[in-house]
Amino acid sequence: MNNLSKYEANSSALTPINFLKRASACYANHTSVIYEGTRFTWQQTYERCLRLASSLRALNIAKNDVVSVVAPNIPAMYEMHFAVPMAGGVLNTINTRLDAHNIATILNHSEAKFLFVDYEYVPKAKQALQLLNNHFAPKSFPLLILIQDTNFKPKSPTTITQFHDEYEQLIQKGDPNFVPIEIQDEWDPIALNYTSGTTSSPKGVVYTHRGAFLSALSNILTWGMGTQPVLLWTLPMFHGNGWAFTWGVAARGGTNVCLRYTTAGDIFRNISDHHVTHMCCAPVVLSFILEAKESERRPIKSQVQVMAAGSPPPTTLLHRIESIGFHVTHCYGLTESTGAALACEWNHEWNKLPKEEQARLKSFQGIGSLTLEDVDVKDLQTMESVKRDGKTMGEIVLRGSGLMKGYLKDKQSTSKAFSNGWFHTGDVAVVHPNGYIQIKDRSKDIIISGGENISSVEVESVLYRHPRVLEAAVVAMPHPRWGESPCAFVALKKVSDEVMMSEDEIIAYCRENLPHYMVPKMVKFVEELPKTSTGKVQKFELREIAKALVQKSENSNNNVLQAVSRL
Amino acid sequence: MNNLSKYEANSSALTPINFLKRASACYANHTSVIYEGTRFTWQQTYERCLRLASSLRALNIAKNDVVSVVAPNIPAMYEMHFAVPMAGGVLNTINTRLDAHNIATILNHSEAKFLFVDYEYVPKAKQALQLLNNHFAPKSFPLLILIQDTNFKPKSPTTITQFHDEYEQLIQKGDPNFVPIEIQDEWDPIALNYTSGTTSSPKGVVYTHRGAFLSALSNILTWGMGTQPVLLWTLPMFHGNGWAFTWGVAARGGTNVCLRYTTAGDIFRNISDHHVTHMCCAPVVLSFILEAKESERRPIKSQVQVMAAGSPPPTTLLHRIESIGFHVTHCYGLTESTGAALACEWNHEWNKLPKEEQARLKSFQGIGSLTLEDVDVKDLQTMESVKRDGKTMGEIVLRGSGLMKGYLKDKQSTSKAFSNGWFHTGDVAVVHPNGYIQIKDRSKDIIISGGENISSVEVESVLYRHPRVLEAAVVAMPHPRWGESPCAFVALKKVSDEVMMSEDEIIAYCRENLPHYMVPKMVKFVEELPKTSTGKVQKFELREIAKALVQKSENSNNNVLQAVSRL
Repeated sequence: MNNLSKYEANSSALTPINFLKRASACYANHTSVIYEGTRFTWQQTYERCLRLASSLRALNIAKNDVVSVVAPNIPAMYEMHFAVPMAGGVLNTINTRLDAHNIATILNHSEAKFLFVDYEYVPKAKQALQLLNNHFAPKSFPLLILIQDTNFKPKSPTTITQFHDEYEQLIQKGDPNFVPIEIQDEWDPIALNYTSGTTSSPKGVVYTHRGAFLSALSNILTWGMGTQPVLLWTLPMFHGNGWAFTWGVAARGGTNVCLRYTTAGDIFRNISDHHVTHMCCAPVVLSFILEAKESERRPIKSQVQVMAAGSPPPTTLLHRIESIGFHVTHCYGLTESTGAALACEWNHEWNKLPKEEQARLKSFQGIGSLTLEDVDVKDLQTMESVKRDGKTMGEIVLRGSGLMKGYLKDKQSTSKAFSNGWFHTGDVAVVHPNGYIQIKDRSKDIIISGGENISSVEVESVLYRHPRVLEAAVVAMPHPRWGESPCAFVALKKVSDEVMMSEDEIIAYCRENLPHYMVPKMVKFVEELPKTSTGKVQKFELREIAKALVQKSENSNNNVLQAVSRL
Repeated sequence: MNNLSKYEANSSALTPINFLKRASACYANHTSVIYEGTRFTWQQTYERCLRLASSLRALNIAKNDVVSVVAPNIPAMYEMHFAVPMAGGVLNTINTRLDAHNIATILNHSEAKFLFVDYEYVPKAKQALQLLNNHFAPKSFPLLILIQDTNFKPKSPTTITQFHDEYEQLIQKGDPNFVPIEIQDEWDPIALNYTSGTTSSPKGVVYTHRGAFLSALSNILTWGMGTQPVLLWTLPMFHGNGWAFTWGVAARGGTNVCLRYTTAGDIFRNISDHHVTHMCCAPVVLSFILEAKESERRPIKSQVQVMAAGSPPPTTLLHRIESIGFHVTHCYGLTESTGAALACEWNHEWNKLPKEEQARLKSFQGIGSLTLEDVDVKDLQTMESVKRDGKTMGEIVLRGSGLMKGYLKDKQSTSKAFSNGWFHTGDVAVVHPNGYIQIKDRSKDIIISGGENISSVEVESVLYRHPRVLEAAVVAMPHPRWGESPCAFVALKKVSDEVMMSEDEIIAYCRENLPHYMVPKMVKFVEELPKTSTGKVQKFELREIAKALVQKSENSNNNVLQAVSRL
């Protein structure tokens, strides 16, 4: 049976590019993209991508050349997800919040051959290219392509001369009958996404065609996304290629509603105008929506499915957002997992449970996606699976073809991440008796106090339940007796004419709601928590401050207060 | 980027066996299987499969050994879909309607090492083994394993002695901690399904783990099957492994409602008792349901999703079945395509159309599945795609990893089927302007009359719309002037005290409803159309009869009438 050879007809490579060709054949006249006054059908999107791919070929793009782009969620950004790999290239979407130095570092490391840049980000891109030229010894210097936006800014012919070419001109010049470069090997790279390392320099995560294909299908299955969805792009496409839904919407013959700015007003307006059915985001976007001004709000006529990731949606947020017409599915993934590795798949029987219990269950990260081979929570000392008791902590490890190929030019980090036959997420979790996984912390954020593991997330979740707390972060600080102990940083909600809260009040509240050893030994009030460009709290910075606080606690607190006031 | 090597963690083989392990972890206490008085959870099903796999290993099953089974849709049949490949074997489900000689031919050709047989089929299996022994020179002789069924027939200890072993005993003897044989290569075979060739000897279609995995996911996506479905097994699992839904239900953490007999009463009873959400079948099963006696009927409380394949569901059937609580999705596939290659995916905009137009659209075979690389309708002379005009006919060709690996021990047929980079379905179709494909005929059933292609299916569909017609088949008969012309075989509905219809009446009816050249030149009335064991009309037999009718038309019609009366 094994001597049957492979034929061209049954051994084609798995690649999400096929979704576009299929959409063009099966959903030819359906709307593929809506962006303010711009609308395309799937046939048009396919043709535009063929044209752009052929223009990239005319500009001598070679197989596996990196094409970088700095742009918000506009149609060009969407099209490049197909056009770049159709030309044989690898798409590198750069976080628009990065500074010029970060961008230069990425351009240098990736050896990008092209840099597409949206008009708003031109000054930053030019600065980055200058840095690349002056401070690096780049192996290649990218051609700069301008992306104009007639919906927001009229074309300026004088600007274009400063660029190698302009996006729409590349489309117009391109050949609509271009034959895309055939993907011979599904392990070939399709995308390169730099992680926003909080402590180390960013790592270039390489996705394969196979991984992107499987993850796109997997994420559709996880969400139960039916045919012809209308997806509002509240999730940046530069985050893991919009968790692979860039390709997934084409697979489903859906409509992409593009967004330049993620304001509450823009969200309500687009949902209402285009009958949005789906959106992905971090829970913080749901907070924006709830905080919308009355004038910005529109009634949500039919339920909007939300896939939320980044952090578990707090109970009150869930109740409030669902009461106005959104339905939230909580999932968990990393750049390295190409979208959701876990999702809190809803068990129909849970509908009978009290709302509070439902919210608790919804905060779980859930079960492994269908295209992963396996997910486990392991004691990393013994590599044994932890007990399904909802208590014993271990690290989440993953295995499967949806995972990244590896870190670009970083064999050491790649081998470390994939050691012992598993991908190590660095996230510490428990497994509940029903098999659902719940994250307790990042492994480096765990506080080890007197031999006990304290989940900083668990302490934070108690702090977040306090009516006066806006933001909270808990980190380890050195303790002479216990080794480490928890230190809380808290930002309070601004309530006018009310007295400030004291450290003692917070500690007393924690004593009522937490085991004694988990109660913060110190509480510091701040205006706002320090965050990375992707919105992650910079705990390493807070740890430094906590350490300083302890060291200075016998002496004057001046330096410390200076440090705190910087936040 | 290509120098990143594969790691164990990101290069695991795609295999549907993983769905069971995942189901056992994530849906441990959900009901996996219901069969009359028998119920299992996913944890139990997983354990039973591990035990059976370990028992097969104890019986010295080797990698890629064929395990044949003759059984209806009972739990053992379901479990073998996982347990056999977990032991490294290849599952060969045999059509229970085949006769002993067919079964012996399959056992000989596949070199089966085991034959599992349900108690009802023991006499036929024994006869097959006798034939295998006496008339073949088998390279191996299978061990016979009895599958008893306490729900229908009490255990009989005396019977067991005639067998090598008994199914439940193998389960009991097995090791629940067995470690399944690792699938190193996703191109390894998982199943072997013999086609019911109408003209040639049956061909052994080999499925790979990769193809089964992709097709299972693809079929879930095509159907939009959500989590925790309750699937009633009205489709024999021996038909393309139940179109891969054997594996698919595990992927979705659903419940398999097993059925020994597919009677209307059993169907209504199970739907009602177990809140069935999904079922697959040929349209004829829907006719059974509609013809149920009053005493057999139960109200359908919530809509049952039906995936129908085999032939397009006629309009009146659609209206009637949907009016009592079923919703039909029409799809198309072959054994070689591992389930649905095309499906008539519903466009939400069609809901606004008149019911008749909706039924016409629903009769289309539709668009290609998501895991196929491509589907096309080609002029086989030029290999050009046909126009999307709903008129120009060509052959449906497929490409993608969901397709079979090939035909066992038949390189010639395999190469022919996969020639020119495509799998050739042998089905003739048109492409409508909306991209939806509609089958017009099997290529060998097309009637070529005066240079015009006549679709026998098109003529039949007109005949079927006649209120008195129960069954109709149209084939080519030799014609001195036109080369071929259509000959119709018609079975009439039994209506008491009504006069028989005449040939002229049928022809006159066709003249009103068809272009002249498509009108049958001869109509013969029969009691019933001749069919294969899988219910396909044996057109080659009808063609022989038509030919004889023409030859004898100048002389006496005696021989012909004899031939017709045999039907």
